[in-house]
Amino acid sequence: VQKSKSNKSITYSNRGMTLEDDINQSNLYYLDTAIAVIHKKPTPVQIVDVHYPKRSAAVIKEAYFKQASTTDYNGVYKGHYIDFEAKETKNKTSFPLKNFHDHQITHMKQVLSQKGICFVLLRFSLTDEVYLIDAAFLIDAYEDQTERKSLSKQTIETNGYLISLGLAPRLDYLSIVQKVYLT
Amino acid sequence: VQKSKSNKSITYSNRGMTLEDDINQSNLYYLDTAIAVIHKKPTPVQIVDVHYPKRSAAVIKEAYFKQASTTDYNGVYKGHYIDFEAKETKNKTSFPLKNFHDHQITHMKQVLSQKGICFVLLRFSLTDEVYLIDAAFLIDAYEDQTERKSLSKQTIETNGYLISLGLAPRLDYLSIVQKVYLT
Ligand SMILES: [Mg+2]
Ligand SMILES: [Mg+2]
Repeated sequence: VQKSKSNKSITYSNRGMTLEDDINQSNLYYLDTAIAVIHKKPTPVQIVDVHYPKRSAAVIKEAYFKQASTTDYNGVYKGHYIDFEAKETKNKTSFPLKNFHDHQITHMKQVLSQKGICFVLLRFSLTDEVYLIDAAFLIDAYEDQTERKSLSKQTIETNGYLISLGLAPRLDYLSIVQKVYLT
Repeated sequence: VQKSKSNKSITYSNRGMTLEDDINQSNLYYLDTAIAVIHKKPTPVQIVDVHYPKRSAAVIKEAYFKQASTTDYNGVYKGHYIDFEAKETKNKTSFPLKNFHDHQITHMKQVLSQKGICFVLLRFSLTDEVYLIDAAFLIDAYEDQTERKSLSKQTIETNGYLISLGLAPRLDYLSIVQKVYLT
């Protein structure tokens, strides 16, 4: 939904859109403009029972959510493998590390060891700020949780990259990827 | 399931395993040995109704299969983006192109335009032969269907690469990728 350009205070306002919505819209823009091919992976589901009614589509009657073994998004940008996870918090001053799971951290390490570009997009929903944090930094923080159980906002500001909000793409994270990893 | 090594004629026999099984097992081997990080994407499902019983997992009560917008597999190998689709046929002398869908061909074009490594793995199930065919070749054949509606076995033998079957990995397609795209 593209908002009016006449009122600047709402033009870039994002209230009500989830981080996932914003990323999906941005990925569609990247795809349409031949900038990159990045998709969200489908939610993994364990299918138990399927009915096949005559003359209509198969209906899944029983299924369960499975834990994903990877991150949410991956794809290709100028030949480079791109892989990231998106998370948001309603906290104001820190990002709790419990938002991440062991298997996601493991996957990020595996991607880094294959020289993929790997990061997380963290959104502070109340202020609508989205930061890109490199996976290596996140992994270090995650594995050093004896003291801190979260990343402070200041740590994120210092070590991450604020992504500017726009209309198309809504969240231009690839311009940050270009700057941080490819320049 | 690893079969007996004493009888060579069955050691590498694959009867009953689907191409997908073989690829998944090979990907697990690649992951465990830090050769590559390649996963099958989950089957996309449109979830309509979910129940949340007390003290047990959420149950999906109504859902439908959605058409995938991409190929089956992707990931990263030595920094390179890898993307492929796997298909099998019971035909002996040709591979019908109706096995592919427009959106898959579109996705392959998009990946190629981003300089990703993109191909298909085609299996002739009756003889258990698996060939790697470059996406560019497949796209040309797909778009030139006025005359032929399938790839002849001979065309595949001439333009594709036979993948040797083994135990670990069962289907060493990355050694072909290395040879074809990276040497
Ligand atoms: Mg997420
Ligand atoms: Mg397939």
